[in-house]
Amino acid sequence: MNYADRLQSSIERCGNACLVGIDPHLELLPQEYADVRDPSRSRAERALRVGAFCREVIDVVGGKVAAIKPQSAFFEALGADGALAWERVVRDAHAAGLIVIGDVKRGDIATTAAAYATGFLEGTSAEDGPSLCDAVTLNPFLGSDSVEPFLDACERTQKGLYLLVRTSNKGSGDFQRHGSPELSHLVAEHVVRWGRRLVGSSGWSSVGAVVGATHGAELRDFRARMPRTPFLLPGYGAQGASARDVLGAFELSACGAPCGALVNSSRGITFAWRERAHAGKHWKDATRDALDTMITEIGAALTAAR
Amino acid sequence: MNYADRLQSSIERCGNACLVGIDPHLELLPQEYADVRDPSRSRAERALRVGAFCREVIDVVGGKVAAIKPQSAFFEALGADGALAWERVVRDAHAAGLIVIGDVKRGDIATTAAAYATGFLEGTSAEDGPSLCDAVTLNPFLGSDSVEPFLDACERTQKGLYLLVRTSNKGSGDFQRHGSPELSHLVAEHVVRWGRRLVGSSGWSSVGAVVGATHGAELRDFRARMPRTPFLLPGYGAQGASARDVLGAFELSACGAPCGALVNSSRGITFAWRERAHAGKHWKDATRDALDTMITEIGAALTAAR
Repeated sequence: MNYADRLQSSIERCGNACLVGIDPHLELLPQEYADVRDPSRSRAERALRVGAFCREVIDVVGGKVAAIKPQSAFFEALGADGALAWERVVRDAHAAGLIVIGDVKRGDIATTAAAYATGFLEGTSAEDGPSLCDAVTLNPFLGSDSVEPFLDACERTQKGLYLLVRTSNKGSGDFQRHGSPELSHLVAEHVVRWGRRLVGSSGWSSVGAVVGATHGAELRDFRARMPRTPFLLPGYGAQGASARDVLGAFELSACGAPCGALVNSSRGITFAWRERAHAGKHWKDATRDALDTMITEIGAALTAAR
Repeated sequence: MNYADRLQSSIERCGNACLVGIDPHLELLPQEYADVRDPSRSRAERALRVGAFCREVIDVVGGKVAAIKPQSAFFEALGADGALAWERVVRDAHAAGLIVIGDVKRGDIATTAAAYATGFLEGTSAEDGPSLCDAVTLNPFLGSDSVEPFLDACERTQKGLYLLVRTSNKGSGDFQRHGSPELSHLVAEHVVRWGRRLVGSSGWSSVGAVVGATHGAELRDFRARMPRTPFLLPGYGAQGASARDVLGAFELSACGAPCGALVNSSRGITFAWRERAHAGKHWKDATRDALDTMITEIGAALTAAR
């Protein structure tokens, strides 16, 4: 089953389009995981604890949302031990029925891109299967030939991609808005072209786009430029975007479920216990409550917009 | 000692500006390493063999060149076992006195970029030291705030960066030449600005630029746009660039040694045994001969250009 179809059917089953980002920032882990910050512990022990924290997050969010998005950097910070923790998290998420979007933002020349596609989507033998991602994020800066090996891999494996088009950070305009048409619009054109090879039975492509929810006003324009392209919207919550900001990215599916976009929140969910609104709660309760609030708010905004 | 100064003193000691790329592409490893392609072997065993191959390459090139550039993707293809092999390769290279430029091309929002900087340049405890890189390649697509955490890390650790400005691949023009001024020129401007914080006693910055040697005619222009910025030039050899193509990237140091650029060859060195010119040789002899030829050719072109 095509990635876009699989994702949409999972969104319909959960009834929401929320995506939980798993960014195990060592400094932000709750007190019961303080040992990850203890330099007297070995890196291997600390990475095991990071994996245990992520597994607890998965226990909380599994069944509530369609997908999670682990951020590779926070695992790579612990080197090869972190890489092992990453694979465990991907396996745990799959065991919990979650789709895994690996936030890896890779981008390289073709032969190298093919090796990254092997590492994250295809593996080198059957034993890799459960620890491979269902989709990954990619950086388009190197051009079409850097993306093609990933398209080939997706064709073989029924997996998906999300190309960075317009990122959520403050500096995203430095280069992404350069030129006329602005670079992000040119990338958007390419994303549509790349996606034609991977259209599912729903009509949606498995080649998606990352567009920051922080650029609310531009979302409708990006949606028009990239019809039938699934959006991944970072920037909700900790980065400042609200439920109303993301509306322009959505269409409605035949069954009325949200369609065409996933709204990501990372720190706002997993580190909700640090916020005043959740003061005094156990971190897992704060995570659950923050996710429930996000699901309710985005659901209400979508209903109101109908 | 500042990275740029350290690199230049190593180039002067070796008398050449050649950089050996370590891309252990599983399909291209010599027959005696055929077990890396054997799906009946565990991934851990195959990764150990990849590490052994890289160690043999390091034995051949150590002392001859200033630096190596391992390509992360070919290690990540073997997941967490590959990540372990990567760390061993970095440690082996350091033990052989080589500077290690990690070709990782990361780029992400600030908090995430900081985690990547931890993983590749700073580590989380003293045990990481020998397996950390001296410099890494970065993708600038996300803008200034995505680069700043790396600049901070370099300031703390005396390490270096190479920002992608104009890559060597065919599709590099898709986005890098977009706009007027073209995007790569705008990135070049930023590279110079970012580099001001990290200038060494030689006057060169530790913030470098990746400019494909395949764009020979543009190199002199990039050199003028980014004075005192060390260049990393991929594209020599297997990708088609010649010794004459790279001349525009160099300046001459006070002592007459090449200054300001490293010329990279990956497959052309480590997989030289596959080329007709080296038919019948053991792969290590082919690697040694191919590197000697590269050193001689670039040295001769530089001498002729004086």
